[in-house]
Amino acid sequence: MQNFEFYNPTKIIFGKDTVNELDQQIPKEAKVLILYGGGSIKKYGTYEKVTKALGNRQYVEFGGIEPNPKYETVIKAVDVIKNENIDFLLAVGGGSVIDGTKFINLAAHFEGDTKDLLIYIDAVDSVTKALPIGTVLTLPATGSEMNRGAIISFKDGKYPVFSNLSFPQFSILDPTVTYSLPDTQVANGIVDAFIHTVEQYVTYPSGAKFQDRAAEGILQTLIEIGPKTLENPTDYEMRANFVWSATMALNGLIGSGVPQDWTTHAIGHELTALYGIDHGKTLAILQPSIWTIRKKQKWDKLLQYADRVWHIKEADEETTIDLAIEATRNFFESLGIKTRLSDYNLSESHIEEILSNLEKHGQMALSETGDLTIEDSRSILENAL
Amino acid sequence: MQNFEFYNPTKIIFGKDTVNELDQQIPKEAKVLILYGGGSIKKYGTYEKVTKALGNRQYVEFGGIEPNPKYETVIKAVDVIKNENIDFLLAVGGGSVIDGTKFINLAAHFEGDTKDLLIYIDAVDSVTKALPIGTVLTLPATGSEMNRGAIISFKDGKYPVFSNLSFPQFSILDPTVTYSLPDTQVANGIVDAFIHTVEQYVTYPSGAKFQDRAAEGILQTLIEIGPKTLENPTDYEMRANFVWSATMALNGLIGSGVPQDWTTHAIGHELTALYGIDHGKTLAILQPSIWTIRKKQKWDKLLQYADRVWHIKEADEETTIDLAIEATRNFFESLGIKTRLSDYNLSESHIEEILSNLEKHGQMALSETGDLTIEDSRSILENAL
Repeated sequence: MQNFEFYNPTKIIFGKDTVNELDQQIPKEAKVLILYGGGSIKKYGTYEKVTKALGNRQYVEFGGIEPNPKYETVIKAVDVIKNENIDFLLAVGGGSVIDGTKFINLAAHFEGDTKDLLIYIDAVDSVTKALPIGTVLTLPATGSEMNRGAIISFKDGKYPVFSNLSFPQFSILDPTVTYSLPDTQVANGIVDAFIHTVEQYVTYPSGAKFQDRAAEGILQTLIEIGPKTLENPTDYEMRANFVWSATMALNGLIGSGVPQDWTTHAIGHELTALYGIDHGKTLAILQPSIWTIRKKQKWDKLLQYADRVWHIKEADEETTIDLAIEATRNFFESLGIKTRLSDYNLSESHIEEILSNLEKHGQMALSETGDLTIEDSRSILENAL
Repeated sequence: MQNFEFYNPTKIIFGKDTVNELDQQIPKEAKVLILYGGGSIKKYGTYEKVTKALGNRQYVEFGGIEPNPKYETVIKAVDVIKNENIDFLLAVGGGSVIDGTKFINLAAHFEGDTKDLLIYIDAVDSVTKALPIGTVLTLPATGSEMNRGAIISFKDGKYPVFSNLSFPQFSILDPTVTYSLPDTQVANGIVDAFIHTVEQYVTYPSGAKFQDRAAEGILQTLIEIGPKTLENPTDYEMRANFVWSATMALNGLIGSGVPQDWTTHAIGHELTALYGIDHGKTLAILQPSIWTIRKKQKWDKLLQYADRVWHIKEADEETTIDLAIEATRNFFESLGIKTRLSDYNLSESHIEEILSNLEKHGQMALSETGDLTIEDSRSILENAL
């Protein structure tokens, strides 16, 4: 096990009818900024629950935070925070709304060009205080409700921004709030949580036995409940397990003391930025190919994954691994997610452009060992056609 | 899955040579009270590492916190805190030292008879501020390094005291610090962590799939590393996995959203209070008998435990369960821990006294369903002879 620090002060309030808890969690005298996305929270009743729970508190709204939230969009909220003397940020949405809210909070308390927050760690670290954030999660997927990270899009790049000030003070996870999600968003969320988990698990053995078991537990849970929660969105037990697994997949716990390989997200971000493919779908396209191309480097953990997650154990090790990769692909497909670039009308001719963007964004040394080159990315993309 | 709140703000600093991190975690100008137990930290070099890391900070010591820390002992530290103008409490020890420190901290900030903190939740809740606590863990077992609980002995009872003010601000978990522990303490610690886990897991099914998997992961890890870390105490990987599993067993995570059954601890506390049997050993004595007597109520989870943790799956369900109970007993015995009351010179003639103390302490409705009577406790003790 590698040395590690684990710190996660976000309070989770989980369960049925927990949106009411807002009243307990936000100071009575606070002036609240409610941040949200495209307005589905108004369509499906969540907005009403939230404003009811806020009672007599003053609040202002900032809507329109899009998927893969753009710097240009979210930065507009900074003026609202300042002009309206906001005391508390309440993000009501999925990972994009929460990520946007985290960035807005840092930007509102940063002296200087706020674009620097996307690029310079020193800029982020120069922010020493910010408003408290609360969230009401409407889309389980990214884990943003219980971590310190945000990913912000700017021009054709995606920029991760990490700060301890970005941990939500609390997050309300009411599975019933997610019942009205479209199937495609649920499927994307399941894949996103699945990939977060394997990126912290299918690397090389590091002797972190509980972390491995916990990662396998998340994967087994997602495999078990994925198709069921799609088929029957109002089955509370299935949906609750989806929500909690997605949070656990990226709250720092399974990543403590282990190597991590964020290749799938790195290449996936380029596919989203260039062609607008849903984030979850880019991950489903890439993961089987990454494992195929990096089979040798991930051999031992792929065998462990095959055995413990899929109960596959053939006499021949490579056959075992290949079957596990195939099982993973089939799982994604069973959720209605296509797993080939060609399914999204991308062909060989697009690969150069993707590689060029990876280079432009400094993604030439990916993987848990930092030795996944642009040529390896080419092989991965060719394999994914 | 039941509704739940999960909140745990303790920062974990885990790994080799992390005691040095004290210098980063405690304010330079703080006056520190170092709390410890019987003095083994001085014998084995941990004290020296700690004071070296504190550098030029002023510090005062309070030693002599015994196993199952007594109110009468720890309360003396309150005067030290007040007279010496202490700013920071640094507990260097195992669960008893950390529990004692948590209680001392509440007592030093409580207006009234500090014995009330043992009995009245209102008294504990009336404390609204306290000093920050840091810990350097020397004995993995209780999870106190990452939770809000403490157990304090007073006369012949043991009293749990819970407060959010008792979360350590940080805990340093350096597995190498534990190398010098006597075998018997390591074995007790493994059993304590194991029992904490099953008390939150072997109850009735509640559909909390990740929590179940994580609990099973802790149990599988303890079974794998238990005998090995006893045989070779300086095998870093084995010891590191023991340390982290013990913390994970009682930091609130696996207990979120599930029923819990603290019967083993409740009856075990009486055995310790009456006869001075080590806490871990009381648990090893009781658990197989509790499962035998409560087989019917725990049927489904015992089957799941047998299958997933021990890979036991006989055609006959009761045989499966009995084999899993036997495997558990054998595991404890393999650690050198005797699992029968008679091994500790207790016989039928002692049972009345134990039951009488359970009644005296209000433990007449135990278990996850609150229906384990004094007569059930009698059956358990008879079975454990």
